[in-house]
Amino acid sequence: VSKQSGEKIKVAISGATGYGGLELIHLVLEHPMADITYLASHSSPGKKLEEIYPHLSGLGLTMQPIDPEQITKSADVMLMALPAGKSSELVPALLDKGMKVVDGGPDFRLKDPEAYPKWYKFNHPAPELLKEAVFGIPELHHDEIVNTRLVAGPGCYPTAALLAMAPLAKAGLIEAEVIVDAKSGISGAGRTTLKVPYLYTEATQDVMAYGFPAHRHLPEMEQEFGLALGVTPQVLFTPHLIPMTRGILATVYAKVTAESNQEALLECLSDHYKDSPFVHVTDISPHTKWTQGTNHAFVSVRLAPDGKTAILLCAIDNLGKGLSSQMVQCMNLMFGLDEATGLRTRAVYP
Amino acid sequence: VSKQSGEKIKVAISGATGYGGLELIHLVLEHPMADITYLASHSSPGKKLEEIYPHLSGLGLTMQPIDPEQITKSADVMLMALPAGKSSELVPALLDKGMKVVDGGPDFRLKDPEAYPKWYKFNHPAPELLKEAVFGIPELHHDEIVNTRLVAGPGCYPTAALLAMAPLAKAGLIEAEVIVDAKSGISGAGRTTLKVPYLYTEATQDVMAYGFPAHRHLPEMEQEFGLALGVTPQVLFTPHLIPMTRGILATVYAKVTAESNQEALLECLSDHYKDSPFVHVTDISPHTKWTQGTNHAFVSVRLAPDGKTAILLCAIDNLGKGLSSQMVQCMNLMFGLDEATGLRTRAVYP
Amino acid sequence: VSKQSGEKIKVAISGATGYGGLELIHLVLEHPMADITYLASHSSPGKKLEEIYPHLSGLGLTMQPIDPEQITKSADVMLMALPAGKSSELVPALLDKGMKVVDGGPDFRLKDPEAYPKWYKFNHPAPELLKEAVFGIPELHHDEIVNTRLVAGPGCYPTAALLAMAPLAKAGLIEAEVIVDAKSGISGAGRTTLKVPYLYTEATQDVMAYGFPAHRHLPEMEQEFGLALGVTPQVLFTPHLIPMTRGILATVYAKVTAESNQEALLECLSDHYKDSPFVHVTDISPHTKWTQGTNHAFVSVRLAPDGKTAILLCAIDNLGKGLSSQMVQCMNLMFGLDEATGLRTRAVYP
Amino acid sequence: VSKQSGEKIKVAISGATGYGGLELIHLVLEHPMADITYLASHSSPGKKLEEIYPHLSGLGLTMQPIDPEQITKSADVMLMALPAGKSSELVPALLDKGMKVVDGGPDFRLKDPEAYPKWYKFNHPAPELLKEAVFGIPELHHDEIVNTRLVAGPGCYPTAALLAMAPLAKAGLIEAEVIVDAKSGISGAGRTTLKVPYLYTEATQDVMAYGFPAHRHLPEMEQEFGLALGVTPQVLFTPHLIPMTRGILATVYAKVTAESNQEALLECLSDHYKDSPFVHVTDISPHTKWTQGTNHAFVSVRLAPDGKTAILLCAIDNLGKGLSSQMVQCMNLMFGLDEATGLRTRAVYP
Repeated sequence: VSKQSGEKIKVAISGATGYGGLELIHLVLEHPMADITYLASHSSPGKKLEEIYPHLSGLGLTMQPIDPEQITKSADVMLMALPAGKSSELVPALLDKGMKVVDGGPDFRLKDPEAYPKWYKFNHPAPELLKEAVFGIPELHHDEIVNTRLVAGPGCYPTAALLAMAPLAKAGLIEAEVIVDAKSGISGAGRTTLKVPYLYTEATQDVMAYGFPAHRHLPEMEQEFGLALGVTPQVLFTPHLIPMTRGILATVYAKVTAESNQEALLECLSDHYKDSPFVHVTDISPHTKWTQGTNHAFVSVRLAPDGKTAILLCAIDNLGKGLSSQMVQCMNLMFGLDEATGLRTRAVYP
Repeated sequence: VSKQSGEKIKVAISGATGYGGLELIHLVLEHPMADITYLASHSSPGKKLEEIYPHLSGLGLTMQPIDPEQITKSADVMLMALPAGKSSELVPALLDKGMKVVDGGPDFRLKDPEAYPKWYKFNHPAPELLKEAVFGIPELHHDEIVNTRLVAGPGCYPTAALLAMAPLAKAGLIEAEVIVDAKSGISGAGRTTLKVPYLYTEATQDVMAYGFPAHRHLPEMEQEFGLALGVTPQVLFTPHLIPMTRGILATVYAKVTAESNQEALLECLSDHYKDSPFVHVTDISPHTKWTQGTNHAFVSVRLAPDGKTAILLCAIDNLGKGLSSQMVQCMNLMFGLDEATGLRTRAVYP
Repeated sequence: VSKQSGEKIKVAISGATGYGGLELIHLVLEHPMADITYLASHSSPGKKLEEIYPHLSGLGLTMQPIDPEQITKSADVMLMALPAGKSSELVPALLDKGMKVVDGGPDFRLKDPEAYPKWYKFNHPAPELLKEAVFGIPELHHDEIVNTRLVAGPGCYPTAALLAMAPLAKAGLIEAEVIVDAKSGISGAGRTTLKVPYLYTEATQDVMAYGFPAHRHLPEMEQEFGLALGVTPQVLFTPHLIPMTRGILATVYAKVTAESNQEALLECLSDHYKDSPFVHVTDISPHTKWTQGTNHAFVSVRLAPDGKTAILLCAIDNLGKGLSSQMVQCMNLMFGLDEATGLRTRAVYP
Repeated sequence: VSKQSGEKIKVAISGATGYGGLELIHLVLEHPMADITYLASHSSPGKKLEEIYPHLSGLGLTMQPIDPEQITKSADVMLMALPAGKSSELVPALLDKGMKVVDGGPDFRLKDPEAYPKWYKFNHPAPELLKEAVFGIPELHHDEIVNTRLVAGPGCYPTAALLAMAPLAKAGLIEAEVIVDAKSGISGAGRTTLKVPYLYTEATQDVMAYGFPAHRHLPEMEQEFGLALGVTPQVLFTPHLIPMTRGILATVYAKVTAESNQEALLECLSDHYKDSPFVHVTDISPHTKWTQGTNHAFVSVRLAPDGKTAILLCAIDNLGKGLSSQMVQCMNLMFGLDEATGLRTRAVYP
């Protein structure tokens, strides 16, 4: 179903009260070829959007119930930003009625149904869809995304790490054992999770590691890194919370293979991303501020003096390329549009 | 010279190394009816933009010298974000060759030439242009902006204060004596002024008043407030620096006239801005975060229990509506476009 | 009961899970003449302090129930940091058994019992104590504090405003009608109030006015300002939340009397605070960062060019001089110690 | 020269205009057994301290010239916080006259004189003192510090990393090849280095890696880690700047030896620090906020699921344990005092 004719894509969004959903609304409002036609909310059907987000006043948007019947009547595609276990209850019905889905949650990221009870504490209600779902990083799965009806938008950490690791793994330049030390802004914790550590007073002027050595983003990181390598990888992943709102910097330590050197590493990345409108390979150290509010990513690599370990760096906006704008990038491909439609904007800086 | 035909406006920008110029670049890049055709820099001609701002890599923009000959050949309009005293040396030559100018600096804001040596320590080189220049708040001077070739973009503080005060003054609802207590983010201090108080370590976790009781934005605030009132006003202005990057909140204390009451005040503002795409009147307290990265403003008013003093509030982004996006809004009007062209985006939130 | 003999004051603290109580613990731990002998908690009796605050590990402190019997056996004085309506239920029993009390909450600040149902939504259970309670700003009520058994620690905003206003009012240099525009850090909202606006993501990079024109700190501000003036004052009070953890800057706009001028104003303040170890009068603009983590205050005054309005500025730490360290200063006086005992430390800077 | 008799240590401080020197002043002012008797400044002799730091007003401290004659007459010990290459010009003269020295700069940290031209671009003027100088981490070099006249205060990053790594290395529980991924607040960049990246607007809401793979703190980290191991180590060190003022979190990835397991690792650290007043071993993830403004450190260790890599974490205040308070801890030992004298204070929190 190409939309190149000029007809706009009709978009349903769910999870609007959270930051992921809010970013989706922001992006579709900016999108020249898409309109929001349904705003679904578990918690607040009937509420006007501007009651929750006064900065969106005057747009006339109102939350509606999660009703598959209504949604499928109103929209061509649903962009979902829901907690684990929520979207998989809804997606089969949407697909059955011919809708496309980009799910920003974890429900369709992992190929192995057994992983869900283990990592997410629920039994997957639609395991047959896991094979069909495409892992939604267009720079790694472009053609599959073009041809699917169901995209599983990856987690923010895996996006950052994989943009740096996957091309080098495919090219045989790094080994299967890596350490991912990631630094994330607080918005990853969401808006609806009210916990003391996320208070301004607690989170500002502080840094800490958390959720290691078994963060939920680990299995998808391993799954996709393994795909790129062709062998089972071993990923050690330590996320950190740092006092900023948006942004993730992934610092990846990877042993290099015998064929590798500084030039080969940088060239491999430059080559892989040479036509990408979003992923910029740089020989200086990337800042997350360069990506603020955007779908852009900055990737770099430097070989340690010992010649054995490569330090890979990737900076993204965790709510942008790490979540919502990447979902829109996937939607663009699913509807035959240029992947950059509505997404070219550079960072709000400073 | 209307551009409604579809031909794009050719835009020259100066002051690109500072935050005002950077924001102009960001906005014109997003603008569907304008292109950057000349990037002028005093300090760095020949330098690639991405050497200074790596987040703008891949756009192929290079700084060029400040050469009126070249500029007038390349562009229809110049958007200038320069320190006091710089633009007035250049503007006469640009106007002579038929260009339009939107000056974001103070050189053409004040009608009285004597004010320049007093407030800005330079003798104005083109005092004859002061009468012609239009003070660039479209919500207050719409028709004059449409018809001028020279707009003086107002200061960030005056923009915030006047959006709240001017309509009430015109309607005779407030008196001539007001107190403006304003809170600004640090980006107002710019990027090229390297001083200890603007270091992260000094500016974070701190607040202070500064530049009172005689800040340079005072005379233009008085000039424009006086115009709205019809009499000479008395403005007491105390700006404060607070630890955030963007945003100004102006809290204005105004004695109300006998005709005034809560309803009348709010209705006056609502009425004045009823067709504005950018100024939103609200009965809740405005947050600067609602305006982050945008041309939007949120205005409110509350009468104190004594019934005598009105508390006016206006939130803007000091680099947006307070500087660069307002300049683009003026440019739109000068070229016959809808004033909101390229500027509708809502806040990057959170 | 003087403790100058060398015997340490035995201190009970309540409200330890909040920021006010935490600051009290911090201060008494530092105090050379006082020991924590009882840590009372409504919510977490039996819990180790380090389970809530790991930075206080190894000190062996454990929460105990709110049991007046136990408390009076264990301590000479109770320092209370509780929400409105909580301390007044407990204080009569403590006083009856001969304890002294410094209450950091609002329960004993207002002289008029009718004010409690109006401003705090509870009927005062011990109105007879309101006359006896001393408003705990030592710079204004030194002798009464020395001689009382019950101090009502003032709110953070009133402390900041009154340190600047009261001496000038007493000296007849300012009029009865003032505007207090105050900027506060987020810690004033506490740690136990989990609300969306206090999340890091929401509170950072934002400013807004709130709770006007009828904030709960208004009546005590008027009460004490009125005492200093000798007449009923009229205070317009607008608090603002700004993105920092600690600190309040009060910017006060006061009409001056005929006898007043810049010199007289500054001299009056300098004279009033000439022997104060904590209140520093300065002719430059005070920063809240100068007070971070301390009991110090910086006060300044500048007459506007019209010669009619004085701009008073006072910077304090809202959890220090604005709450807990001022309570300890009062305790020192109540036990015959030098008021600065244990409190001389200067700001952690930067 | 023990000072246990009660006579106070007379302390000279240099580098007072920077943050390290400021912290030294703060600490010696708090110290019950030490007085500041000389405040030396290259840049501002004759200036009152409060002209630079108004929060230290009323203390009567004035900068004096760097005059070894005067300094040795006035003080028992000099605490120096100077840029590389400065202290080594002065120290020989001070030692000759019988003074003790704690140098917070790098001039005496490295045992190999050849390292100075390589890493710091100067030829060491007093290489004979390098052998004598003691690396100033009391938890690793207690007895040598007690007995020396010259302490080389370590860098902030090495302090954080070594507190976690050294005991495990000594115990043979980790291998010689480690990765140190460190996150530092901005104050490490100092106050006198005015550069664009350290502006509030640039540094806030951003994170980046810098100075890798060859940061100046690498050689001392390798030297001391090698000492603990007994073999030449291989350290890969990546520092990051994060948007906060104070604090370093070091995340260290170390391969464990065959004898190692989770219990052994934690027990080794607990045992090593069981009598330390400052280093707290915890089984939860340490926050830098726990150390704000203090000499405390929080250390933890967790074995990865593969059983082969240990993740070590250490949180300190980079200006406290990472610089100035550790220097005072060393001074205490050099003068026969309890190492914790004047340093017990816990974090200003939040």
